[in-house]
Formats: sequence, C-alpha cells, structure tokens
Amino acid sequence: MTAHRCFDPQAFRTALGTFTTGVTIITSCSEEGEVVGITANSFNSVSLNPPMVLWSLAKSARSLQTFSKARHWNVHVLSTEQEELSGRFARQGEDKFAGVRLDNGLSNAPLLQDCTARFQCRTAFQYEGGDHVIFVGEVLAFDHSERAPLAFQRGQYALTTRKPREELRLGCEPPPECSYTEDLLGYLLGRSHYQLLHALRRQLQSRQLDEHAFFVLSVLCIRDGLSLDELNAFVSYTGKPVQTTTLLFLERQGLIASERKGDETLYVLTAKGRECSLEEIALAKAVEEDVSSRLGSSDVEALKVLLKRLIASTDCGVPDLWGPR
Amino acid sequence: MTAHRCFDPQAFRTALGTFTTGVTIITSCSEEGEVVGITANSFNSVSLNPPMVLWSLAKSARSLQTFSKARHWNVHVLSTEQEELSGRFARQGEDKFAGVRLDNGLSNAPLLQDCTARFQCRTAFQYEGGDHVIFVGEVLAFDHSERAPLAFQRGQYALTTRKPREELRLGCEPPPECSYTEDLLGYLLGRSHYQLLHALRRQLQSRQLDEHAFFVLSVLCIRDGLSLDELNAFVSYTGKPVQTTTLLFLERQGLIASERKGDETLYVLTAKGRECSLEEIALAKAVEEDVSSRLGSSDVEALKVLLKRLIASTDCGVPDLWGPR
Repeated sequence: MTAHRCFDPQAFRTALGTFTTGVTIITSCSEEGEVVGITANSFNSVSLNPPMVLWSLAKSARSLQTFSKARHWNVHVLSTEQEELSGRFARQGEDKFAGVRLDNGLSNAPLLQDCTARFQCRTAFQYEGGDHVIFVGEVLAFDHSERAPLAFQRGQYALTTRKPREELRLGCEPPPECSYTEDLLGYLLGRSHYQLLHALRRQLQSRQLDEHAFFVLSVLCIRDGLSLDELNAFVSYTGKPVQTTTLLFLERQGLIASERKGDETLYVLTAKGRECSLEEIALAKAVEEDVSSRLGSSDVEALKVLLKRLIASTDCGVPDLWGPR
Repeated sequence: MTAHRCFDPQAFRTALGTFTTGVTIITSCSEEGEVVGITANSFNSVSLNPPMVLWSLAKSARSLQTFSKARHWNVHVLSTEQEELSGRFARQGEDKFAGVRLDNGLSNAPLLQDCTARFQCRTAFQYEGGDHVIFVGEVLAFDHSERAPLAFQRGQYALTTRKPREELRLGCEPPPECSYTEDLLGYLLGRSHYQLLHALRRQLQSRQLDEHAFFVLSVLCIRDGLSLDELNAFVSYTGKPVQTTTLLFLERQGLIASERKGDETLYVLTAKGRECSLEEIALAKAVEEDVSSRLGSSDVEALKVLLKRLIASTDCGVPDLWGPR
C-alpha cells in the first residue's frame, strides 16, 4: 500500500467506497408544502444523550434550500427489499413520491413505510463541510423493524451475513498437515446438500424412490413429453444419467407414462406422478422454511445469491428447464 | 411499525445498529509523543473537493484530549482479517500498539498496515454533537487495497456479498403457478454440489470410482482402521451407505486393505489409496480456487460461513471426523 496525494476524485471515491454503509432516504417538506427526498449513505449516529444523528448533503443539491430551511427531516434506513426505492430517490426529476404510501409523522416531512428503521429529527446544527453541508438532527422519535437492512459497498448494493465472532467450526481442528478439512468448499456443499435431502429421502423411500427418481419427476413436472435423451440433458449435471430401468420402474409405479412418437419414446407424468412430485416439492419448501427460521431469512437470501453465482460460474451447459421449448 | 418517543438508550442503540457500517481504527499522537487509537464505526465521507471525512468521539473518551489537540489523525478502514485488531482498539487499558507494525505517514499519527483503506487527515473542524465531538478532517493522503472490508451491523461483525442489481436468474422466470423453481434452496444446493463434483468425477472415473468411493477414501485418509459400521457413521449422511461390495472393489483395486481384529474387519488405506485420495483432494482444492477466482475470495468466505451455519442447524448427529477417537 503506498499513499497517493489526493485530488484524483475517482480514486478518492473508490477508497471511500470500501467503507461499507447502509442506505437511507432522507425526506423533508418546505414551508410551502413541497416535499423533497434523497438517497444518502452519509448517515451516521452521533450522540446517545441527547439522541442525535447526522448526514451530509452536497451544496449543489437541488433540495439543499428546502433542507436548510426545514426544521424537521426524517431518516429512513432501507431494507433489502427497498432497492428500487433507493434508486428512485437517487435520481433526479421524477415525482419520487408517486405511489409511495406514507405514515403520519410528527412533522410534515414524509414518513415512508416498510423500512428497517426510521428516525424523525429536528435540525440541531448545520455545519460547513467542504462541498457538503453536515446536518445534525436531534431524534424526536424512532422505530425499527426486523426487515434485513440494505448495505452499500464499493459502489454496489450488498447483502450482509453475520460473521461469527469465533471461527465457526463443525468439528475439531484438524492437524496442520491434513489437506482434507471441513473448510473444503466441496465438502461443505456436499454435506449441506445431503443434509437438506435427509427429510425428503424418508418420504421418497416410502415410495421406493431415491433422489434421482425425484429429479426425473420434477423435470417432467415442468416439461412433459421428454425423451430419455432430453431428460438426461436436464439431469446429467448430477453425474448420474437416467437409465431406462428407472423409467420402467416409475412407469410400473404408475408415476409416469410413455408414448411412442415416431421412433422416439416420450415420457409424461401421470396424475399420480404429478401429485407425488408436488408433494416432494412442498416438503422441500417446508425444509427450506425450517432452515430459514434457524438461519434467518436474510442469511438464506444471501446464501441463494452466492449459490446462483457459483452455479452460473461453473455451469457447463445445463439447458434452461423453464425456458421456451 | 409504531414510533416510540426516544430516550430509551438501548432501544435507540438497537435502531441505530440496523444501519450497516464499516469498521475503522482512528489513530493520533500527542505533542508529547503519546499515541492513541480507537475503534469507530461513526466514520463517513463528507466532501470530495476539498476531500474531507468525518467521525465522532464520545466526550467521555480518554483519548478526547489528544484528538482535540492533535492537528493530524489517520483513519484505517479495517479488512475482514482485522477483527482481532478492531476488538483490541475497542477495549481500554492495554498497550494497543504492542506488536503492531506501522508504516511511515505524513504525520506522527500511527499508520497501521494491511488495511482495506487509509486516510491521513488534518483536522479541519471540530463540531459540537451532543455527548460526542464531531471531527472533520481534510484528507492529505489516502490509499486502499483489494482486501475485503469488515462490516458491522446490529452489534455484530458482518461479511458482505454483492447484491446483484437485477435479480440473478439462471433461467427464464417460471410461470407463477409453478411450485418447482430455481429459487428452491434444495435445487441450488444440489446443483452447486454436483457442478463442483464435475471436475472430480472425470478423474474418479479414470479409476473406475464414483464420488461415494471417494467419500470412503477421504474418511480413511483422516481415520484409518475403521469397520464398515464405523465408516458408515461418517458417510451415511450422504444417504448412500457404504456396501461391502464397494469395499471389496476398493480392495481389489489396491486402494484399501482389510485386517481382521477379533470379530471385526477393519479397513485401512494402502499407500496407493492414500495417494489417490490426496490427488482427489488436491483437485477439489484446485476447483475451489478456480471458483474463488471467479466469485472473489470474500464471496467464497461468506458462502462457507453460511454453509457451516446451515450444516450445524440441520445436523442429525454426524460424528466429528477430526475429533479424538
């Protein structure tokens, strides 16, 4: 790391962007009743007693005059589901409040709904801060919800995951010479996958099915009338291609039916097969909800984003099951 | 969400804590040469031109006098690997700088190494902020690195994951009535697991092995001399118990050997089996490094934390492979 003299604004912005922040929308209302709102990540806490927070606004901002004259403003800490709202209040020129539902607050400043936290403030100080004005407000009222907060880092929206204080270990620390450890990504993915399958497996076994038969049923649940080759294009990423014997077994169980079409045999789900497949999917969802209640929905959301990113980066051409035929 | 009147300091802290921040250490040096440093998350950017940042310090802080009199201070945005340092500078009374390597900066203020970003500042303003003083500094020099930044949210350290601007989709949007979608956690885990196995599978097939045989070899690589039942205690979470036929096959391939001990047959790796197992593990690590280079190491770190949390929360009693016998 070497120090650069400042004044390359882009490099300075980039360095500042490494400091993670939440995302807020700050609103106010002029004496004439004109409402303003801007997206800001320059918010922070200042004082507990008296309760105070601050944020800063560019002197060039069109809303500067309203905020400067206003006695009250509201800070809204946005949730992960309010990214669209963040974008809207970061842009200029549109009616930002169109269709936005508001609560009644202590002042005329608009009070947005569905946020992670809200602080209703009275201006305490306005301070000089270079090309910005620093607004310090006394918090008159606040509230917060369990909604996962949206974060911002390096110019992009971000999700957060609790970092365990102690390194999270499933078992004992292996000796240093040991190359196979629980920290191997492949081990963690395999074990997660199999443990999640555990609940499904019992239900499958009661029908003499295994997870590979379930994969066949779920593919046919989305796309009916596939040949063995077509089925395999969707399933072969599992490393276990569907065999004719599996299909014959599923047919004997009354879960699928076959139709001849020219030289090809096409497979379709029977009503019983569809019911069985939907039951398994419902169970998979119940398992997911159970995991979600233990890990928290924001951790599960982050996990899904990461898994999708991993799948996209290691995909070797699985066709889109949900795409047009 | 209903508004509470303020002044319950704990509730106010909790609401403020929903605003995500990075973590900084701010350092300075008195005229007498006494160095001070504190952990603060009240940092934020203020101005681009002139370049300015701010942070606030409790009026009760022991370092207040030094910071108030100092003309210079340095802000260090901490990386995910500096959590211990963050804890140390948040506590009182120890020699915080013991063993900490420093760089030469523009002033006498200590300049820490290995941070995500650093800002060397000259005090521009000190402002009243309730029970805190707001320090605004002009940035004289700054630098930054690629190290993943540490975050803080709801009173806990946090990892961050880029949130895709558009929802990340692997395939087309399924029709709304479709209950089996790519957003099913089980689907994402299965597909991730199998796609990661893909590279390993080719190498395994060249030895006529499958992933289940590999699981057996990797368990024996950590714990030698296991009976079939003992092996299965470690492997059965995969839903596919080890069969005697698999062990016989591995024995014929010269990868494992069996020993009679009383009534039991115990299995051990041969030198060839160990070599094969270590080769597979090395390949699994290479695959992981490839994924890491595509996703970024901080995303892979967050993914591992989440998977461990999922495994711990769905574990139905897999014994610790690395634990004492």
